[in-house]
Amino acid sequence: MTSARDRFYGIIPAGGVGSRLWPLSRADAPKFLHDLTGSGRTLLRGTWERLAPLAGPERVLIVTGRAHRSAIEQQIPELDDHNIVLEADPRDSTVAIGLAAAILVRREPDVIVGSFAADHVIGDEDGFRAAVAQAIAAADAGYISTIGIQPTEPAIGFGYIECGDPATIEGAPGALLVKSFVEKPDADTAARYLADGRHLWNAGMFISRADRLLDQIGAYDAQLRAQLEELAEAWDDPAARGPAVDRLWPALRRIAIDYSVAEPAAAEGRLAVIPGRFDWDDVGDFASVAKLKSGGRASDLSIIGENARVLADASSGIVVSQSDRIVSLIGVRDIVVVDTPDALLVTTTANAQRVKSMVDALKLSGRDDVL
Amino acid sequence: MTSARDRFYGIIPAGGVGSRLWPLSRADAPKFLHDLTGSGRTLLRGTWERLAPLAGPERVLIVTGRAHRSAIEQQIPELDDHNIVLEADPRDSTVAIGLAAAILVRREPDVIVGSFAADHVIGDEDGFRAAVAQAIAAADAGYISTIGIQPTEPAIGFGYIECGDPATIEGAPGALLVKSFVEKPDADTAARYLADGRHLWNAGMFISRADRLLDQIGAYDAQLRAQLEELAEAWDDPAARGPAVDRLWPALRRIAIDYSVAEPAAAEGRLAVIPGRFDWDDVGDFASVAKLKSGGRASDLSIIGENARVLADASSGIVVSQSDRIVSLIGVRDIVVVDTPDALLVTTTANAQRVKSMVDALKLSGRDDVL
Repeated sequence: MTSARDRFYGIIPAGGVGSRLWPLSRADAPKFLHDLTGSGRTLLRGTWERLAPLAGPERVLIVTGRAHRSAIEQQIPELDDHNIVLEADPRDSTVAIGLAAAILVRREPDVIVGSFAADHVIGDEDGFRAAVAQAIAAADAGYISTIGIQPTEPAIGFGYIECGDPATIEGAPGALLVKSFVEKPDADTAARYLADGRHLWNAGMFISRADRLLDQIGAYDAQLRAQLEELAEAWDDPAARGPAVDRLWPALRRIAIDYSVAEPAAAEGRLAVIPGRFDWDDVGDFASVAKLKSGGRASDLSIIGENARVLADASSGIVVSQSDRIVSLIGVRDIVVVDTPDALLVTTTANAQRVKSMVDALKLSGRDDVL
Repeated sequence: MTSARDRFYGIIPAGGVGSRLWPLSRADAPKFLHDLTGSGRTLLRGTWERLAPLAGPERVLIVTGRAHRSAIEQQIPELDDHNIVLEADPRDSTVAIGLAAAILVRREPDVIVGSFAADHVIGDEDGFRAAVAQAIAAADAGYISTIGIQPTEPAIGFGYIECGDPATIEGAPGALLVKSFVEKPDADTAARYLADGRHLWNAGMFISRADRLLDQIGAYDAQLRAQLEELAEAWDDPAARGPAVDRLWPALRRIAIDYSVAEPAAAEGRLAVIPGRFDWDDVGDFASVAKLKSGGRASDLSIIGENARVLADASSGIVVSQSDRIVSLIGVRDIVVVDTPDALLVTTTANAQRVKSMVDALKLSGRDDVL
């Protein structure tokens, strides 16, 4: 039998728009297509370059919307046609990851899949890959495994994983059993989590044998599993795929994999977590972008944008410029300015999470042209 | 002899760019060409409409730069050709007002001129005209007269006029002699001025017989007076004007009329001030624009711009929009956002005076394209 590591296949669900990063992120230019760290590569490209050395460049599959196909092919010219799964419309993470797993398991029955968001940032890639290697070992041992990030601050923007006893898995010395998944906490709870040492950030990384993952989905929703298998069966047949999508897609249930897979598996003691001590961020809002760009120095003004022309006096925060306009700041602290051709956002890092409500308000007022 | 009021002629020097209102105000679109109050008329048009009922629409003369001719003719279609004096280049207020006076006195030897900035705002126009009527009477009695504004707060952005004894002039019962002109004070001094009741804001309004004004200029700088008279002599002769301008203009001294006329006249006891109790503002910066637009309610968000599309949550201050972009604000208080096609300014009302330094910095860095 091939080693677990050789059976590993990376899955990148490239879906969410990233409303909190409006007006940079849009339906037609979602978060993962942007370079939010000033590294010179988009978040998606960064994710791909992190996974390719682990799985092999031929063994990373991207699930995305039809509209993003050409942008993705441009960013990842190495990507083979059979490694891109185009969704008819977005159906949340159980469908995205479950369909990818169902397609891959038909191609390769003992495949181990690992799903990693397209729009997160990781500093220490070696640390990441060492954690994934342990997660693969845990997956090979029959667990659904995840990687939890050691918190460095009492963040309220992330979900948490409550760790239990060591899992004792060969090749995964750090593995712990997961007691539960918890939603984004309030500030007091987050401070308690940070202090108790038993809580990790949920980075949404799931590693599992593909057949095991489908069993877990089936235990939660047998019909959904059957639909995913039926789609997968037709997927690699050009004549069959279209009709199958037309027939099955509209009825697919929208549910996050946290609910369909992770929570039930944790409740059954079948979910293992590898604590990761590497820098990780979901780049959830502009405060996070500012922090990443400035290396955490709050006194700095971070500037994102290839052609940014910024003149600042006594100002800090972040400017994202998608135009060649002069952006001038005077005496504004912790400011967030996002300058795009048809929409401008001015807020502060403390209000960065509220950008989503602004997007909702724009939707309600019929201004979809800028969303 | 015609009554003093019938001999009155208004002069509007329409010069300064208004650097503190950048990027709205530019060399090619100075402050006076903007509607900064949301009244539907530009500051220049407002000034003209304030003066025309006083002097008669045929008796208001505008001094401006050649570049602004067509914009001004568009805004004031009533303006006769002989009521616009185009400067070869800006030479400060003594030249602008002195040349206008010299031209007018040749046309009409006993003319009384009153000079009023093109870019100020006055609320109570009846109050303004009543004060001007007194100032005309004082001018007819041989004084250089001015109108000082009763302070309503310890403003540090204005110069002050220190009042002395009553002047006892027929037709000008409110007139006081001016003891001195004082420059923009610091906060403590401004508070003292407000408390002592003897200081008025210098609104830069000067009313005088034209010949008397030229005498005063001549006493300060005989050569400058001679140059202005020579220019005036040629002005109404199409063949002579151009050569005279070419010969004389480059050597004209740049000096503010406050120094050449007002201070010396005050020192000689020849300057009378009419205290004006009407609302007045020089609209010197965006904090002032915000205040004027909101009627002083600091909790409000003022919006300037015909096609402004602003969506704001928990925000106050001012948005000036010259584009049809969506401007969205979240949780920013006392903010100033000025959105123009090629430059964006983000500051706060407290920093509004510092905009001028930003303009200086742009100049130094060679970014004249946006100035």
